[in-house]
Amino acid sequence: MKFYLKAIINFSKDLEGIDIGKILKDSKEILEKGAPKGKGAKIISWKVENNILLIEIESSKWVRPHDGLFRLKNFLSDKLGKKYKVGVRGTSGSLYMITLTLPKEPKEEVTIPFVREIKFKGKKCTLILENLDEEFLRKNYIDRIISLVEEKVNNQYYRGKEEFHEVMWQSKPRKHFFDKDPSQEMEKRNWVKHRGRGQWIFGPIATKIMKTFESIVYDELLKPLGFQEVIIPKAVTWDVWTKSGHAKNLYPEIYYICPPKTRNKEEWENIIDFYKITNEVPIDAIKENIKSPIGGMSYAQCPPLWPYFQNKVIADESLPIKVFDRSGTSMRYESGGIHGIERVDEFHRIEIVWIDYHEGVTKIRDEIVECYKKIFNDILELEWRMSWVTPWFMSQEGLTGLAEKDKNKRDVGTIDFESFLPYSKSWLEFQNVSNNGDKYPKGFGVKSQTGKQLYSGCSGVGLERWLVTFIAQKGMEPKNWPSKFKERIGELPKEIKFL
Amino acid sequence: MKFYLKAIINFSKDLEGIDIGKILKDSKEILEKGAPKGKGAKIISWKVENNILLIEIESSKWVRPHDGLFRLKNFLSDKLGKKYKVGVRGTSGSLYMITLTLPKEPKEEVTIPFVREIKFKGKKCTLILENLDEEFLRKNYIDRIISLVEEKVNNQYYRGKEEFHEVMWQSKPRKHFFDKDPSQEMEKRNWVKHRGRGQWIFGPIATKIMKTFESIVYDELLKPLGFQEVIIPKAVTWDVWTKSGHAKNLYPEIYYICPPKTRNKEEWENIIDFYKITNEVPIDAIKENIKSPIGGMSYAQCPPLWPYFQNKVIADESLPIKVFDRSGTSMRYESGGIHGIERVDEFHRIEIVWIDYHEGVTKIRDEIVECYKKIFNDILELEWRMSWVTPWFMSQEGLTGLAEKDKNKRDVGTIDFESFLPYSKSWLEFQNVSNNGDKYPKGFGVKSQTGKQLYSGCSGVGLERWLVTFIAQKGMEPKNWPSKFKERIGELPKEIKFL
Repeated sequence: MKFYLKAIINFSKDLEGIDIGKILKDSKEILEKGAPKGKGAKIISWKVENNILLIEIESSKWVRPHDGLFRLKNFLSDKLGKKYKVGVRGTSGSLYMITLTLPKEPKEEVTIPFVREIKFKGKKCTLILENLDEEFLRKNYIDRIISLVEEKVNNQYYRGKEEFHEVMWQSKPRKHFFDKDPSQEMEKRNWVKHRGRGQWIFGPIATKIMKTFESIVYDELLKPLGFQEVIIPKAVTWDVWTKSGHAKNLYPEIYYICPPKTRNKEEWENIIDFYKITNEVPIDAIKENIKSPIGGMSYAQCPPLWPYFQNKVIADESLPIKVFDRSGTSMRYESGGIHGIERVDEFHRIEIVWIDYHEGVTKIRDEIVECYKKIFNDILELEWRMSWVTPWFMSQEGLTGLAEKDKNKRDVGTIDFESFLPYSKSWLEFQNVSNNGDKYPKGFGVKSQTGKQLYSGCSGVGLERWLVTFIAQKGMEPKNWPSKFKERIGELPKEIKFL
Repeated sequence: MKFYLKAIINFSKDLEGIDIGKILKDSKEILEKGAPKGKGAKIISWKVENNILLIEIESSKWVRPHDGLFRLKNFLSDKLGKKYKVGVRGTSGSLYMITLTLPKEPKEEVTIPFVREIKFKGKKCTLILENLDEEFLRKNYIDRIISLVEEKVNNQYYRGKEEFHEVMWQSKPRKHFFDKDPSQEMEKRNWVKHRGRGQWIFGPIATKIMKTFESIVYDELLKPLGFQEVIIPKAVTWDVWTKSGHAKNLYPEIYYICPPKTRNKEEWENIIDFYKITNEVPIDAIKENIKSPIGGMSYAQCPPLWPYFQNKVIADESLPIKVFDRSGTSMRYESGGIHGIERVDEFHRIEIVWIDYHEGVTKIRDEIVECYKKIFNDILELEWRMSWVTPWFMSQEGLTGLAEKDKNKRDVGTIDFESFLPYSKSWLEFQNVSNNGDKYPKGFGVKSQTGKQLYSGCSGVGLERWLVTFIAQKGMEPKNWPSKFKERIGELPKEIKFL
């Protein structure tokens, strides 16, 4: 790697009469600090013009030129301030060139914000940036630009590759009582009603089935394993998604939330008047009158819990933390087309979260899996399977592969639960369970009393997906439903009759 | 009222050689249709220029000139088409003048979209509109413009007037065990955690209290009165708010929902790259990449249920419909400042909805009030009161006053439930119950089997407000809590300890 920066430093006064050359020579040591001898940043030329110092700095692996520039700025401030009453004002870069060798040869062009030109020659890559302000240099954008180039070239090799998926357990086959599309059949009988894009109203019967699932999860898993209910916000602000990693990738699937620019009614009068005259909502004028998004609707459900623990040290006596949430909807802008309630934009989940040391998190994950097994085998009598897949916390960041190189270890990572849908002869992911490793405690700065790294796990129970699974396999006639489920659900509400 | 319209009608061919005067004379009858003899729209001048007919039409109370224009257009099409092979093309208005007498003299200027000039002279008002296209004339914007002028002048008299509020029942005073701000005290002990604007995370203890409230409402009200659970969407699309009336007024308080313009990741690449380099979410660039809002987050909770019944005829055997929802969050962009959990932007309610004939709706409302009385007096032992107020379905449309002139009737309208907060010595509205009259069945076209008008009612149980009320009066020490509540809540979860 080779770095070259052409920069200027502004001073409060003319530098005439000051031996800048001497001072710059003395700065050699600070430009090498932290690097092996002779390997730090180097000034390769300099020139004074009135109150401006023009300077060229070079470096290789150690000490970036912009770091050198700021070290130099401080050094000059120190040397010139007291003795000559000259203050250092600002600095900026007119040209930054970086030459690096990529792990792989790029297959096609790459563009990067802030970078004027990227040249490739085999694995060799040259980046040229111009007119960089002090903030740009100070915030270390340069290193993140280099990472991004490497990431993009790397992605050219992995693009189109499937996510990891390996079936790890499969139930016995079951007799199926239904071969139709549950969404269509339920809609015919007013159990559910389709609304806008991926949105449904659930009538009394469908809701009772979903609430019975919820109570089964409570009775058979949450209560015996000692989970406590919490209420996690459903509007997720950017601070959460920057810490959870979602801000790296998730934009195309978010439903964004924008508050009004003002609560002052007078500034909404035109829109209100327009509506009252035309009976049409002027959505484009409204867009002009709302703020940029503060975030979006809950996507993965557990991230907005983490600010509760953020930058805290959890006492050992409070471990393991075991909580769950069922307080509202999540939303995803899913791919278009009609999928019924198996792929919805607005959906309901029980989200289960636990925090502990490494072994504890894995142990709880395994206990949860056992509870699910009991529920699906003995109570719902489903045909289902478990698969070891790309962890959700990686795929939602746009990453593929597995959390651990040893895929047989099955420790940190995600298990998807998949059910067989007779009507489409396909498998549907209807929930998952994960050991999320240290990702969240690290991302949100959550520490343990002992100083040992905390881990966390989570499991999302998709109630719409359970409903599809159940109806697809068991049908809409309670006489065909498993007896333990029938006991729990009791009498169904009467269907609402429309003439 | 006096109306004057100067308009043109375009034809497919030159009108030379056709006796337009004769045809226009023959149109007199159709221009008077529906009005008393001699009182309809009148042509006061006309002129032919090549393939254009310039025309001036006047009318008073009956037959608007633009209605007359379209009648004339059809008449001409009929008369000229077959005989002369001349087709009528389009029409437009170059000038529309309306003179009307307002019920009250305006106190200040009024502006209205589409209207170039509004002149007032005492109660007399003249509106001048220019260059109106055919769509404008056809969609009857004119009448809604007149209504809007009247509404705005009327509002000049009522602005600043308080909403109606009359205490109708008050509980006995109670001993208070706490004099502090519940939000602050709960936050100190990690029962709750403040997030962004009006948003909180509820930890295990606060959640258990709220869920116990929920179970009390279920056991003491919903179950005995036979309400069935449903799941109502929480993202509300414009079609719902146009039918519910909220689109007339609610814009300054909505959290808007905007989907991405595209799910195509390449079109988000710049934003993703920018984030990866700067670690800052470029919210303004995101705003450019999202669609205009499809609606907003649930505000009043029951409106998005109504599409389930929309344009349906409900069988008598299914009446009364009695349902409730507790499936997610509502959001309101509340006024700024810190209000703790008594005024939150994201909140949780049980929403109870019923539909029946008029007497049935009132009867169920009264039964619900009795259940609440029992809960607040015997189980929670609260100091509270009920007030007859401006109905929520009016105030959310920007209206004041009452649904019925006879305020003592207390039939169609809203009862607010208010609790005393010792720490601030003020009353807090913590829930309400309403007979909403025919508003929703009419707005969503829901009919009864008999043809008799259906009514509906709703009641919103604000769980955050219940929590504030309870802690404000009873404090955070279970030993001071009412015994019936203590029985129900059982053991509290342990507080999570942070070091």
